[in-house]
Amino acid sequence: MSVDEDLCSLRWDAESEVAEIIDQTRLPHELLWVSLETLQDYCTAIQDMWVRGAPLIGVTAAYGLACDLARDPSDTNLSEAHNTLLATRPTAVNLRWALLQIADTVRGLPVEQRAAAALQQAHTLCHDDVDHCARIGDNGLELLNALPNDGVLNIMTHCNAGWLAAVRWGTALAPIYKAVTEGRNVHVWVSETRPRNQGMNLTAWELQRAGIPCTVVADNSCGSLMASGRVDCVIVGSDRTASNGDVCNKVGTYLKALAANAHGVPFFVALPESTIDWSCASGLDIPIEERSEREVLWMTGVDEGGAMHSIRLSAEGSEAYNPAFDVTPATLVSRLVTDYGNFEASDSGLAPLREQVHGKP
Amino acid sequence: MSVDEDLCSLRWDAESEVAEIIDQTRLPHELLWVSLETLQDYCTAIQDMWVRGAPLIGVTAAYGLACDLARDPSDTNLSEAHNTLLATRPTAVNLRWALLQIADTVRGLPVEQRAAAALQQAHTLCHDDVDHCARIGDNGLELLNALPNDGVLNIMTHCNAGWLAAVRWGTALAPIYKAVTEGRNVHVWVSETRPRNQGMNLTAWELQRAGIPCTVVADNSCGSLMASGRVDCVIVGSDRTASNGDVCNKVGTYLKALAANAHGVPFFVALPESTIDWSCASGLDIPIEERSEREVLWMTGVDEGGAMHSIRLSAEGSEAYNPAFDVTPATLVSRLVTDYGNFEASDSGLAPLREQVHGKP
Repeated sequence: MSVDEDLCSLRWDAESEVAEIIDQTRLPHELLWVSLETLQDYCTAIQDMWVRGAPLIGVTAAYGLACDLARDPSDTNLSEAHNTLLATRPTAVNLRWALLQIADTVRGLPVEQRAAAALQQAHTLCHDDVDHCARIGDNGLELLNALPNDGVLNIMTHCNAGWLAAVRWGTALAPIYKAVTEGRNVHVWVSETRPRNQGMNLTAWELQRAGIPCTVVADNSCGSLMASGRVDCVIVGSDRTASNGDVCNKVGTYLKALAANAHGVPFFVALPESTIDWSCASGLDIPIEERSEREVLWMTGVDEGGAMHSIRLSAEGSEAYNPAFDVTPATLVSRLVTDYGNFEASDSGLAPLREQVHGKP
Repeated sequence: MSVDEDLCSLRWDAESEVAEIIDQTRLPHELLWVSLETLQDYCTAIQDMWVRGAPLIGVTAAYGLACDLARDPSDTNLSEAHNTLLATRPTAVNLRWALLQIADTVRGLPVEQRAAAALQQAHTLCHDDVDHCARIGDNGLELLNALPNDGVLNIMTHCNAGWLAAVRWGTALAPIYKAVTEGRNVHVWVSETRPRNQGMNLTAWELQRAGIPCTVVADNSCGSLMASGRVDCVIVGSDRTASNGDVCNKVGTYLKALAANAHGVPFFVALPESTIDWSCASGLDIPIEERSEREVLWMTGVDEGGAMHSIRLSAEGSEAYNPAFDVTPATLVSRLVTDYGNFEASDSGLAPLREQVHGKP
């Protein structure tokens, strides 16, 4: 089995000079590619979460800025378009970083050269993201290949850290795609990932498209699956990693790590080095975003006839608390799988990675 | 605050001689009391899960048999009605037991005395259930009162083990109702309990009706809630308990027990002694029911206009695995709270309970 080249979340149409993205809010019920032609299109795509995942948001914004500079490459517009894009998701670190890359590239150039240079830089960011994810895949594959297994490798994952969150490959799913490309028999336990169901909605959809056998389970089932020996390893992504190896990821990650630890199941976390916050000494220092209670109490899907509905599950007047992430202590992490190799989740384990990327302290 | 006498799931209307139950399939969106007038009514109520929870199923069936004996107390009908009721949920141990109680009571009696005797026995079973749950509540309250707390007691529960699953009080919720009756300030973290959402649908509804502050959380949030010190104890019910104290309960219980153990949060399991399977030496011997994948992939609720819909959450063609229960090893259980007192979850810890109820082995 080979993993289809089509498994990507953003593509550049060189002829019409527009980026095309998937409106991910329609998934898994509809696959809709949308052409982004104006700055407003790019802003809507980011703001309304048609694209999601830090790397994909950054690359989309880079193309958006390049696209608008083709229309008006003036200093005034560079500044305005930059700020407009930045305001779409003000707290997204990767968005800010990607826009800076474009702005820094063009600022010193004559206006007539700016559009081409910006587009070239956007392509570079896009290709770099694909490259880094592919390297995470290769490094993770080494760990998968080292696991004992009886023919089929049963891997559990949480949330969506696949190509829908990046441009291609993804992070946690990259080793799985690489394993399948190598001819390994893989089966994936997809935990649904309440409350937003990114596992059931996005990861299962991704894997089904790639023809990789997978089974959706309620998050609650993950403990008994590990207790009964049906999980060879767990791989998840990370939204932010502290310098001591503590991992902040989608809520529910921690419970899986506890169960994996209780049953000797390897627990891998896949992440680009860029998501390590070297200034953050411990997971305890990471603030946890609290989101709307509506995400817990309401749900959206399609009925038998294909019509979409949003329904309230709870009693009227029920209140909910909805932290979006949790912190998994480094002691429960078997290995951090990065674009620069695999590392022990600890201060000393990560020191060589820090030096490799950022030089001696 | 006092807990309303109205908080019950079954009542007997002495005038019209019918049992009234809540159609729990309509909860939390509608509270509908239904009169059960014929044997077929009782069968439908049990088979279609208008009533649920082992104790409530047993008591409902007992009234059903008594009711049909009033129509025809013959030996033939005793046998037929007994078998018809038994077939509604063939694996429900409590249903079988309750029907036997009625049958044994009336078999030796002249036909003209049978209806009254059967009804009297049904009342006895009903009152016994209320009494046993109240004792669980009193015993659990002792444990709650022994916990350190800063004014508000934060209790986490899973699934529904309240009066909706019994006749009154419930099991896991009984100590909470007792604490509130005593004037304690209680706040309950209600884990939604995917895939069937009994926490969000039933427990939150129950607690709201009783005016007890509660907050629904995704099952995934329970680890970080404990890690952040916001849970004083966990109380859950048990569907079946092994003689070594291993607890089989709604799937997801085990993950909460792991998290509680990791953070020193007391983990209590409340159960009537009748659900201890003394012939079962270990939780490993308990078979786990696997239910339809549709429970994971589809969901039912009401839209903004109040219309009910069933919607598919997943991509078309997604497959799911749906074990209904999991096993929590006795080592993770701080205390078993029973109708006969509180016991350590172990063979030796449970031996005095066994002797107290069943005599010397």
